[in-house]
Amino acid sequence: MMQPSGLAAAFSTRMAHLLADRYSVSIPLREHHGRDESIFTASLPDAVAFARSTAEVTEIVKLCNEFKVPLIPYGAGSSLEGHTLAIQGGLTLNLMQMDGILAVNAEDQTATVQPGVTREALNSALRDTGLFFPVDPGADASIGGMCSTRASGTNAVRYGTMRENVVNLTVVTADGELISTGRRARKSAAGYDLTHLFVGAEGTLGVIVEATVRLHPLPESTMAAVCAFPDIDAAVQAVVQIIQLGVPVARCEFVDPVAIRALNLYSKTGLPEQPHLFFEFHGSASGLEEQIALTQDITGQLGAAGFVWSASPEERSRLWAARHNVYFAALQLRPGARSIVTDVCVPISRLAECVNQTIDDLRRSHMIAPVVGHVGDGNFHVQMLVDGNSQAEIQCAEAINARLVARALAMDGTCTGEHGIGLHKQGFLIDELGAASVRVMRQLKQALDPRNIMNPGKIFSL
Amino acid sequence: MMQPSGLAAAFSTRMAHLLADRYSVSIPLREHHGRDESIFTASLPDAVAFARSTAEVTEIVKLCNEFKVPLIPYGAGSSLEGHTLAIQGGLTLNLMQMDGILAVNAEDQTATVQPGVTREALNSALRDTGLFFPVDPGADASIGGMCSTRASGTNAVRYGTMRENVVNLTVVTADGELISTGRRARKSAAGYDLTHLFVGAEGTLGVIVEATVRLHPLPESTMAAVCAFPDIDAAVQAVVQIIQLGVPVARCEFVDPVAIRALNLYSKTGLPEQPHLFFEFHGSASGLEEQIALTQDITGQLGAAGFVWSASPEERSRLWAARHNVYFAALQLRPGARSIVTDVCVPISRLAECVNQTIDDLRRSHMIAPVVGHVGDGNFHVQMLVDGNSQAEIQCAEAINARLVARALAMDGTCTGEHGIGLHKQGFLIDELGAASVRVMRQLKQALDPRNIMNPGKIFSL
Repeated sequence: MMQPSGLAAAFSTRMAHLLADRYSVSIPLREHHGRDESIFTASLPDAVAFARSTAEVTEIVKLCNEFKVPLIPYGAGSSLEGHTLAIQGGLTLNLMQMDGILAVNAEDQTATVQPGVTREALNSALRDTGLFFPVDPGADASIGGMCSTRASGTNAVRYGTMRENVVNLTVVTADGELISTGRRARKSAAGYDLTHLFVGAEGTLGVIVEATVRLHPLPESTMAAVCAFPDIDAAVQAVVQIIQLGVPVARCEFVDPVAIRALNLYSKTGLPEQPHLFFEFHGSASGLEEQIALTQDITGQLGAAGFVWSASPEERSRLWAARHNVYFAALQLRPGARSIVTDVCVPISRLAECVNQTIDDLRRSHMIAPVVGHVGDGNFHVQMLVDGNSQAEIQCAEAINARLVARALAMDGTCTGEHGIGLHKQGFLIDELGAASVRVMRQLKQALDPRNIMNPGKIFSL
Repeated sequence: MMQPSGLAAAFSTRMAHLLADRYSVSIPLREHHGRDESIFTASLPDAVAFARSTAEVTEIVKLCNEFKVPLIPYGAGSSLEGHTLAIQGGLTLNLMQMDGILAVNAEDQTATVQPGVTREALNSALRDTGLFFPVDPGADASIGGMCSTRASGTNAVRYGTMRENVVNLTVVTADGELISTGRRARKSAAGYDLTHLFVGAEGTLGVIVEATVRLHPLPESTMAAVCAFPDIDAAVQAVVQIIQLGVPVARCEFVDPVAIRALNLYSKTGLPEQPHLFFEFHGSASGLEEQIALTQDITGQLGAAGFVWSASPEERSRLWAARHNVYFAALQLRPGARSIVTDVCVPISRLAECVNQTIDDLRRSHMIAPVVGHVGDGNFHVQMLVDGNSQAEIQCAEAINARLVARALAMDGTCTGEHGIGLHKQGFLIDELGAASVRVMRQLKQALDPRNIMNPGKIFSL
């Protein structure tokens, strides 16, 4: 076995003894684990380990703690802000072989899973229960990773994000202790909320080895719809009114004219190049009728046209596949380009203003960049298409992102609705919450990980 | 001014300089602030302060930090587990004069308030907005206190608890820093979830000086209903099925035969002395019809009878007043008695079993004790009526509570659904989460409050 740089021989020997060939220093494996879906340059770990049990994770964490080896928990590798880059080397701990569904409690609407279970695998396993796990960040991410980035997606407006859908976690802390953050009751007032401390901690406080998540009843009926608006204000105002009336819309996505153009090219749809809303409604047959009537009423008054309704599963899938394909469709607008994706979230009252100003900025900057948004939450993404070899273009994109974040913060919004801070947004985090708040986060980190081994250098530097 | 025992003269001088007559060492004031709604013996603070601004709170915290004076944040005083008892003396900081509603953002469905605003005051202020703040712990508690105990109540099944309804907080930390825990966006993935760290921290990590909470659209229509079941299993099974079908029931309360007897005596109702469910439905007119039809179908199949429906506001108020009066009604079952109230929460699949075993235990122990529950959440309360002067009775009640908590924990439940740990449940917290988890909580406390001035001795001892 080649001795990896930076790791003590005794550490490697003990890791190999523990995991045999599930501990590796092979360059291709390290390269695979040294990147994510962001545009950041890869940072390779010194070694990669594949754990199969909580007992193994505990031993691995203890070894990392003893030898002061940085440890990066790794799931599906679909994060977007450099979360899993091994910027200080060390060990990347791949948890995808811990993929057991430990319990499904249908009456309580909970499932307990290992961290390597993906959301699609969980939903497949739930097929006969009448329940589903709603959180849908696009990628088929692992539940452990989704916990760690506080993921959400298209239907958070109805079902909440990981913040609302994690009941409890089992975590190996930085000193190798196994802790439970809560019980399976729907609510509790028992002590500090450790569950929410680890949800969104990006692997910097411990390794999640089990998660109990909330399930939801599959809707009796589902209906999808898409319609075009004369301008962005009208589209956003429609959503504000729909939510204000308490219509329990399940999905409500904004797609801008550039993204529509990409979709038309990629999915052979023939939608007008105007701002669109994609809707999905869940409910009983009569409940749907009512939701739809209210939605048509509101959107009609705001000038919506070209309604396409889809009740059959096939049509719905086709419609939403188009929405879900925006990312890949957009890449076709500039073949060979790479994407830099932004992720602000603002109070919905400011959303139209924020989107409009951002599209103006994109135009002025000559940046090809579709805009899509989980508009019911006030969260939207700009997918800037850049030449990955052009520092000038990358800098231009970063400057646009910085202006976008500043705009969102000025509107009482956040620099990240669902992607997380990772490496990329550490300065923005300080802009958002202030130095004192980030100092509190550092104090928490130092208390729980005094040797700074857990995914060091992410969220903030010490 | 009389020099209070235990406080340095310089501290008192500087406090009096800051607050004039809003700093006091009067015995009646200290007595008023040295108790809560629990049966615990009062523990008086050495002094009481009334803050009117964030700037004052900051100065007070800095003084307490400098002089190492325990500081107990105090709201409406309606907590139940000894949270506000000044067990180490020090200063009780009454925040009820910080009662400003700073902003109502109707489009975003948020309100930003000072900590001394009560939930009823907030709802009064919202009267013309078409929105309301749903969390309802019974007492007219302060929003700051409700944040600190992670309060909930009868409609958490539909609208969530304080965990789901706090958007962000502004907090003065133990060293007198003012921090913001988040922005007003509906979701965020920006760093550690400081909001949820302070929600439920029972004043042990800082003083909440502002809270932004979520508002909800007032329902178009409301309907209340009550019905009797042949046994507890049938009542609970009805709720399980109603929730599994996705009926968005707004309130769903279990009331046992002893509580019904108390209600009949107190409110002159004539309900049969059987297990009852009290329902409230919110929705559109047709949505209500559907919810009600499903509920009648399910409850009918489980043997429910004696349905009383109330559509008019007066009838509904009367019905729910009866439910809300259970506490006072129960006291009439044994005039002169004091209440010891329990608060477990279990996965709903175990609820019937847990309630049945508990009622058996109460009978065997000859304890007069109505049982009521927020049954959609699996949360129920036993109100044990004891002679406050009889140590034997108090010990008997405590033994019943200990057995109840053990039973709930064995069912993967929690020792407190909504009241908190306070002084009373510190041992149970360790039973529930394990010593390692509580050690993590202690580490967090020590990191953020190294001098242990913030409500010391609550949740855990150091």
